[in-house]
Amino acid sequence: MLIPPELRSLIESGCHAHIVTLNADGSPHVTLVWIGIEDDEIVAAHLPRNQKVRNIERDPRVVLSLEASTKSNFGLTEYAVIYGTARITEGGAPELLQKLAETYIGLGVKFPPMDNPPPGYITRIRVDRIDGVGPWTGRPV
Amino acid sequence: MLIPPELRSLIESGCHAHIVTLNADGSPHVTLVWIGIEDDEIVAAHLPRNQKVRNIERDPRVVLSLEASTKSNFGLTEYAVIYGTARITEGGAPELLQKLAETYIGLGVKFPPMDNPPPGYITRIRVDRIDGVGPWTGRPV
Repeated sequence: MLIPPELRSLIESGCHAHIVTLNADGSPHVTLVWIGIEDDEIVAAHLPRNQKVRNIERDPRVVLSLEASTKSNFGLTEYAVIYGTARITEGGAPELLQKLAETYIGLGVKFPPMDNPPPGYITRIRVDRIDGVGPWTGRPV
Repeated sequence: MLIPPELRSLIESGCHAHIVTLNADGSPHVTLVWIGIEDDEIVAAHLPRNQKVRNIERDPRVVLSLEASTKSNFGLTEYAVIYGTARITEGGAPELLQKLAETYIGLGVKFPPMDNPPPGYITRIRVDRIDGVGPWTGRPV
């Protein structure tokens, strides 16, 4: 599905994404990542071929969850849960990290901090379903 | 394992927990929950017998992830990922929700907001392993 404008705004506000992938034994693996949007896919970058990358290559099912800074009518923190299908492409990670660092750390920061980082990997996620509490679910809050 | 003091402080600061459980088809399910600590287990309360409760009854593997308000030496947001084994007990949910609401919403709030809520369910999680970025991992940050 296309990324609805309410979710696009939440992602571009610099919320961290809790990303769930599945290990070989079926257990869930979770880390925090920076995310952006390219061509209606959600993207995240990784310098090493880490556990997330290996998990997605085996099983493309991923979930991202993001906490908003807004509250529902009941005073509950709004959040988005994004169920998606992911694929990995090689290269381009330092450039994407540098771009996202300006949102997540601040303007003018150099990230990755080292010279000559490896080309790395990009996770590209097609959104299948959106849940949570907030205007991005399409349900009343 | 016992809950280390650094993680206890993070939990008691009122961080929301992103809780991952596993659906019958092995896919991950994620929602946001309020959590507390009882007898060295992490606890969360649910009024209905929702998807989380049914998933844990089938497969006790859960992951909680919490964003801290602190930063690492590289300017990255610290966070905890808690891998655990969960069990469900019946009853006591309104009382636990009322207690947690004072942390997560504010003193004096009535939660659940309705009269005569059902007894509900409590998820009790034994911590098996802690990952993430921050002092609770035991690794340098």
